[in-house]
Amino acid sequence: MAGRVATPTLGVCYYPEHWSEETWAQDAAQMVATGLTWVRIGEFAWSRLEPREGVFDFDWMDRAIETLGSAGLRVVLGTPTATPPRWVVDKYPDMLAVDGDGRVRGFGSRRHYCFSHAGYRAESARITTELARRYGRKPHVAAWQTDNEYGCHDTVVSYSNAARDAFRDWLAQRYQSPQALNRAWGNVFWSMEYDSFDQVELPNLTVTEPNPAHVMAFRRFSSDQVVAFNRVQTQILRAHTDAPLIHNYMGRELAFDHFAVGADLDVASWDSYPIGFLSDRIEASEAHKARYLQQGDPDMQAFHHDLYRAVGNGRWWIMEQQPGPVNWAPYNPAPLPGMARLWAWEAFAHGAEAVCYFRWRQAPIAQEQNHAGLLRPDSQPAPALGEAAQVAQEIAAVGPLETTQAPVALVFDYPSAWAWETQPQGADFDYFRLMLDMYRALRKLGLSVDIVPSDCDDLSGYGLVLAPGLMTLGQTLSDAMQRCSAACLIGPRANTLTEEFAIPNPMPPQVPGLDVTISLMESLPPSHMRPLREGGAVRHWMERLEGAAEVTLATEAGDAVVMSSGNLYYLGAWLDDAGLGALISKLCVAQGIETHVMPEGLRLRDAGGTRFVINYGADPVTWDGRSVPGCGVAWFAR
Amino acid sequence: MAGRVATPTLGVCYYPEHWSEETWAQDAAQMVATGLTWVRIGEFAWSRLEPREGVFDFDWMDRAIETLGSAGLRVVLGTPTATPPRWVVDKYPDMLAVDGDGRVRGFGSRRHYCFSHAGYRAESARITTELARRYGRKPHVAAWQTDNEYGCHDTVVSYSNAARDAFRDWLAQRYQSPQALNRAWGNVFWSMEYDSFDQVELPNLTVTEPNPAHVMAFRRFSSDQVVAFNRVQTQILRAHTDAPLIHNYMGRELAFDHFAVGADLDVASWDSYPIGFLSDRIEASEAHKARYLQQGDPDMQAFHHDLYRAVGNGRWWIMEQQPGPVNWAPYNPAPLPGMARLWAWEAFAHGAEAVCYFRWRQAPIAQEQNHAGLLRPDSQPAPALGEAAQVAQEIAAVGPLETTQAPVALVFDYPSAWAWETQPQGADFDYFRLMLDMYRALRKLGLSVDIVPSDCDDLSGYGLVLAPGLMTLGQTLSDAMQRCSAACLIGPRANTLTEEFAIPNPMPPQVPGLDVTISLMESLPPSHMRPLREGGAVRHWMERLEGAAEVTLATEAGDAVVMSSGNLYYLGAWLDDAGLGALISKLCVAQGIETHVMPEGLRLRDAGGTRFVINYGADPVTWDGRSVPGCGVAWFAR
Amino acid sequence: MAGRVATPTLGVCYYPEHWSEETWAQDAAQMVATGLTWVRIGEFAWSRLEPREGVFDFDWMDRAIETLGSAGLRVVLGTPTATPPRWVVDKYPDMLAVDGDGRVRGFGSRRHYCFSHAGYRAESARITTELARRYGRKPHVAAWQTDNEYGCHDTVVSYSNAARDAFRDWLAQRYQSPQALNRAWGNVFWSMEYDSFDQVELPNLTVTEPNPAHVMAFRRFSSDQVVAFNRVQTQILRAHTDAPLIHNYMGRELAFDHFAVGADLDVASWDSYPIGFLSDRIEASEAHKARYLQQGDPDMQAFHHDLYRAVGNGRWWIMEQQPGPVNWAPYNPAPLPGMARLWAWEAFAHGAEAVCYFRWRQAPIAQEQNHAGLLRPDSQPAPALGEAAQVAQEIAAVGPLETTQAPVALVFDYPSAWAWETQPQGADFDYFRLMLDMYRALRKLGLSVDIVPSDCDDLSGYGLVLAPGLMTLGQTLSDAMQRCSAACLIGPRANTLTEEFAIPNPMPPQVPGLDVTISLMESLPPSHMRPLREGGAVRHWMERLEGAAEVTLATEAGDAVVMSSGNLYYLGAWLDDAGLGALISKLCVAQGIETHVMPEGLRLRDAGGTRFVINYGADPVTWDGRSVPGCGVAWFAR
Repeated sequence: MAGRVATPTLGVCYYPEHWSEETWAQDAAQMVATGLTWVRIGEFAWSRLEPREGVFDFDWMDRAIETLGSAGLRVVLGTPTATPPRWVVDKYPDMLAVDGDGRVRGFGSRRHYCFSHAGYRAESARITTELARRYGRKPHVAAWQTDNEYGCHDTVVSYSNAARDAFRDWLAQRYQSPQALNRAWGNVFWSMEYDSFDQVELPNLTVTEPNPAHVMAFRRFSSDQVVAFNRVQTQILRAHTDAPLIHNYMGRELAFDHFAVGADLDVASWDSYPIGFLSDRIEASEAHKARYLQQGDPDMQAFHHDLYRAVGNGRWWIMEQQPGPVNWAPYNPAPLPGMARLWAWEAFAHGAEAVCYFRWRQAPIAQEQNHAGLLRPDSQPAPALGEAAQVAQEIAAVGPLETTQAPVALVFDYPSAWAWETQPQGADFDYFRLMLDMYRALRKLGLSVDIVPSDCDDLSGYGLVLAPGLMTLGQTLSDAMQRCSAACLIGPRANTLTEEFAIPNPMPPQVPGLDVTISLMESLPPSHMRPLREGGAVRHWMERLEGAAEVTLATEAGDAVVMSSGNLYYLGAWLDDAGLGALISKLCVAQGIETHVMPEGLRLRDAGGTRFVINYGADPVTWDGRSVPGCGVAWFAR
Repeated sequence: MAGRVATPTLGVCYYPEHWSEETWAQDAAQMVATGLTWVRIGEFAWSRLEPREGVFDFDWMDRAIETLGSAGLRVVLGTPTATPPRWVVDKYPDMLAVDGDGRVRGFGSRRHYCFSHAGYRAESARITTELARRYGRKPHVAAWQTDNEYGCHDTVVSYSNAARDAFRDWLAQRYQSPQALNRAWGNVFWSMEYDSFDQVELPNLTVTEPNPAHVMAFRRFSSDQVVAFNRVQTQILRAHTDAPLIHNYMGRELAFDHFAVGADLDVASWDSYPIGFLSDRIEASEAHKARYLQQGDPDMQAFHHDLYRAVGNGRWWIMEQQPGPVNWAPYNPAPLPGMARLWAWEAFAHGAEAVCYFRWRQAPIAQEQNHAGLLRPDSQPAPALGEAAQVAQEIAAVGPLETTQAPVALVFDYPSAWAWETQPQGADFDYFRLMLDMYRALRKLGLSVDIVPSDCDDLSGYGLVLAPGLMTLGQTLSDAMQRCSAACLIGPRANTLTEEFAIPNPMPPQVPGLDVTISLMESLPPSHMRPLREGGAVRHWMERLEGAAEVTLATEAGDAVVMSSGNLYYLGAWLDDAGLGALISKLCVAQGIETHVMPEGLRLRDAGGTRFVINYGADPVTWDGRSVPGCGVAWFAR
Repeated sequence: MAGRVATPTLGVCYYPEHWSEETWAQDAAQMVATGLTWVRIGEFAWSRLEPREGVFDFDWMDRAIETLGSAGLRVVLGTPTATPPRWVVDKYPDMLAVDGDGRVRGFGSRRHYCFSHAGYRAESARITTELARRYGRKPHVAAWQTDNEYGCHDTVVSYSNAARDAFRDWLAQRYQSPQALNRAWGNVFWSMEYDSFDQVELPNLTVTEPNPAHVMAFRRFSSDQVVAFNRVQTQILRAHTDAPLIHNYMGRELAFDHFAVGADLDVASWDSYPIGFLSDRIEASEAHKARYLQQGDPDMQAFHHDLYRAVGNGRWWIMEQQPGPVNWAPYNPAPLPGMARLWAWEAFAHGAEAVCYFRWRQAPIAQEQNHAGLLRPDSQPAPALGEAAQVAQEIAAVGPLETTQAPVALVFDYPSAWAWETQPQGADFDYFRLMLDMYRALRKLGLSVDIVPSDCDDLSGYGLVLAPGLMTLGQTLSDAMQRCSAACLIGPRANTLTEEFAIPNPMPPQVPGLDVTISLMESLPPSHMRPLREGGAVRHWMERLEGAAEVTLATEAGDAVVMSSGNLYYLGAWLDDAGLGALISKLCVAQGIETHVMPEGLRLRDAGGTRFVINYGADPVTWDGRSVPGCGVAWFAR
């Protein structure tokens, strides 16, 4: 994906069905005047496209596409399967998902379906086919979006009967016999052995924790169901269109394997709500959250940009970009002036092909009525409209940007997230949190980062590779590490589980060429830090390491924290910011990777020959002789 | 209601069915000797009045009324519908309410019925009729109480099938067609459109938040069901008695519209538990809660006094007054000496006709066995008995008190509470909390306050009118504001929603004569305060105001906080105590309203020509040359 | 039980069914080489002993016992009823327990049965009979364990239909008529009266709190069901074996009456996880938890040792001793070096006959894969193995130890725990917490303690007897107090309830010979302390005491806290550590009991003529001229 060149574009999300038809043409004209290229429509409009089973009303959609397209906009058309109308639910009452407490998750909002329900999957195929046939070859329809935000509102895992039955089939395929399943899961442990796949229940509402192998299998199954559900749509769309297929993923959504879904799509996109995410899905100090209250976390967006660039195999968008206050976080302040521009530029610096603001005009109705748009409900400009127009002018002036291979690769693996959620072993051990800590440490040293999947087979060109928290180190990645010249920092908790959720024997981490054994693992409460000899400390997690490899880093008490041999390093602890920074600095120096200790809130990103300096702080910062305004971004040839 | 004169009286709650009949006469004599006028009985006695369906036992009640009445007491007789006996539940198993998680709320305590169940409503009518016929013309029965504490234990909203069916009927009446409902609610938003009212489910257990218009309609319906349930009883009672009809409301109970229930009654009463409420239903700092641990919050009771005076259209009581430690709060300390007297006097100062202590003798059994009474379980005097006797002597000496119109009116509106609960938009935005903040600011300036409903059509005589958080500003109130000479301080968040829970167009607040538009709304976490130019700060909530009106108050950063024109002021923020105090002071000066900066814990209340000084603090305070003992009250001609 | 002499032994828990049969012999040899005497097996092996109904496979168990026994080990054989196989659940789908929210607690972990289910009780009898017949006379089987950890995972109380039906039968036996039940519970209170036992539901999911008398009866019933369930097994085992019968209780498990279960057994044992318990089941300051993070609380284990010594009528074991990090607490650090030895020695000092580590080899599979053993999963020694071997050598050298009667007795009563859980009246009033506060105060004064049941009839030989929080003071104990010469400190909240959960009349505490009446009870939030005249303070709870007895201790405000007459003292408050220490010191001086103010973390225990000094601190401490290493233990003749 490195070396890819993309010309930044802007877009917006639009709901013609929400507005009087008279306004469409004016809206379209104003979008074009603002400098927007893309307009996404249709993803929640099923009840208007098919008000009753088999009774279609495509006329309005025809006119909407024609109006938008003829104004010069390129349409992204969404399949409406995230919001099945009431009559679909009446037809299949058992299509609803069930939560972990056994409660049916009813009609009345969105995403009210179980991925495993065969009837609903057929309905989804049917409406997709109708849309694909009618619009697949329309020139104005330049891209397709499947469904909307898979997994949002915790919808991947369902404990419905449909899920249970499908899980049993999945198990039968995977294990072939109950005896094999019993062996794989260690069901002898508490007399949990099965005689038949039909005895397997879903792993909720057990007396105490269920077998983690059982949970992990269910998590793998649940992810597979998302892949299969999406594939039904992509296969239909492929038969009717050559336009790129996209899904819009969410932030910090790890319940399904995005790489697997992404393999069936052409472009990955995500929905970036920096201020909402700061409030409701990042572990950070209150001081940090107060400092970035109206800007968002300085690393959260970039992390997802790099992640979804990998998921999209190099091609990625922001499908929904926060333009102002949202409605769904615990607190919803407004972005500081400049942020709606900064976020877009940061995305382009990370290689985005398009950034679409959500949404054109704030809706005065229903669930998201307090979610800002580029226009107010009364069609007056909201603050972000001007910033979007400014970005439009700037991207026209800047032209194409190149995605350069970064000096650092960070291995990201969805099953590892499920594994540590299944068995954290310490209340603070969360995969995403660990990854963001690692990513933040890299970015605070001014490094650009590539995220790679755990089955990556080529690490050439990287100077540093990090693989924290990787539950199972596969042969492919392990071989790539052996072959490459990068310093490979593996751990903590790496390769500590087999794919069936057992402790391997010989004991982990079993990295070829690195004589290290984890003899014991400890989780630590926040009050307990173990200082390192060279500054910083261990927190949350520490392993006791044995073996002949060299001790590269140790605690003040003399316990090994990093052991290494050649280019392979095993990190047996979760380090605090200072400890991580020092360790990565040292590895970078050894590998000849240039680092910069960045001022608070300032971040770098290199795109081809262009270096972007992004200031999440509210105040101007001078760096490398250049002043970057608060909430501002600067770029120059490097 | 101003100008009304009432002679204070005392009373007590009594349960003859809990005690041996031999003790009744002695209890009655001691009540009279203590100086009590009223005795409330009967409200939980259904299983003794009708042990089996249609088998009545009124003899004991006849004797109890006779014993109490002939001793000189006036009886308040309660309908026993808050505690249907087991056989009623056996007859109608589906009469039980269902909670938001779908769990049936079973028999075994109290309030175990769904307001929407037709069968139970008929049972309620039947037992009410029996009681009304037998006791409606008895001279000793001087007042009636319907049911007990509507809404207590979160019982207004029920997700039962009975509620669902009744809700569908209610919707059909309100909207006449599903299409009209779809338009009103904006159901196009996520394909949530209905073809039939029978498709509408209750708004619980949806995947993510339900449509707020759906929730709001359900909240209006749920309130209406309480009104209808109560009206069944009042219509029956009216046919058989001329005695005043009363209901005993709770503190901070906002789930139904008390003004609507109150319209069918003669007197509003409430159950005042100052120390329990401080512990379990006020947002306050730990220091504040520690300071008033054994006294209760200095403004909570007065707020309810003023609210229920409005609900009762000028006539109000305390039906249950805490006399000692209760059993139901997280912590249950004893009142400091003097508080049982102070609370009664504070109520009289606010116009109460009667204060009834709950209860005569502490029960040694069942749920409330640790709830103090005026007597201990062994019939020895508890500390409050002596204070009650002192109050009895004092009120006899003081004689009638007049309720004077206050200089300030505060608009209270139950639907607004439902609106912000449905969609707080910020975790700290709660209607009651906002109202109490406003009320406290007024009281800390020594102001007496009238609470008025949101359909108030006459504001003459007020110098200052506050309408914070009023979701919809109706024509009636708006006209009254235009007509009056008071400074009208409207907002924050006022008139920001239509009755159908949509953002109005043109945009809010649309106060006639005041050119202000809210262009954006922000909610703020506790860490984020925005200082005001003139002291104090914005917290929790801030709106961006535009328009031609004058900026009366602004932040240090220059953002408008109050804009005004003539006597109309729009407040676009939630202010802290300092900010509110300064703003109100300024308005009072301009209006010529006298204010006093009150010492901590001291409050004033003017009743006719008498000024009461009430000291919630534990230590004596000197004010205006007069010393008021800790936990004491003083009064003098003003 | 005083004067009993026991020779300390060690053991381990082992799961032959988890390991290849080839390893058994080597494992056995290594156990013996380590110095272990006991090996517990079989308690989770039902699916291997009876894979399908009536199809038994005992051969492997025969060989396992033979291999272990012939190596020199003594086998403790567990009945496997804590983990019924899937086919048992398929046979009796309604045998599963139901939680308080009405959710069935399903198959897939352990303890998935309701104690009240007759069918499962029969299955339990059947498998016990099979095992008893086959192994009851085998010489290698030297002890039996019934089931495993009754009550673990909150499994005593079940809201299933089986429990409901059994509860109705139990009520009918206890009360004989619904009218008697109504009177006993005070059901007149809220018209909760029953006409038939079949109308009584379980006390969950009521609208507000159920009648505490109802809850208390259900708690008594639930405890009785555990006793009855266990008795089925002991009666069968007695018929087939003369080996001692044991159950392994948990820490801080109070949901059933262990004295009643213990009466049917020969030995009490418990499962001691000091570091896990510190993390998840002790109220303590963060500083305390940080200080003892890798050692466990200094009093928690000793408290249970003394409690289970009483439950076992003098005979007790540790059946499971934590050897390294566990998997189930919020945080799971490793024990400091020395702790696996210290814990064992502390147990022996308190009279344990055996300490068995859990488990031999860490399992690489299923729920407890991160639970350390004496061996790692790859069979290498874990840190505790060496410490166990050291203990084995030391106990051989030390030889038998005597259990001496302690100078202090602490009355422990399970129904009191249920009572205060049913009606805490203050959020911090917890029976166990109160007991541990009392116990800690005694231990910080260097005192050895005996725990005695609430029906203890002989207190001779004690100098001090404490009975805090005893809901009902029975005649037997009361008489014993009258007869003995000990200072008896009764309260707080002692004798404040009848067995039917009513306030007695005359009012409590009604201690014969002590003229004290509790006129009022207060619960206090953490912010509220009431200083004592002689240092320390009241916290959490305070009673207002009246009567002619002498005021022995009072607050600075002059309120009585302790009142006394002769050897009887009533304590009407919960005291902080300083207050408790001062009070107990004073009583000990008066009684001539020697006390020592112990340094932080250091504890004493006298066993016959031997005094043990146990250092839970990480650093060495010098005491009485002797230095005790951090995490170390010293002993000497006293």
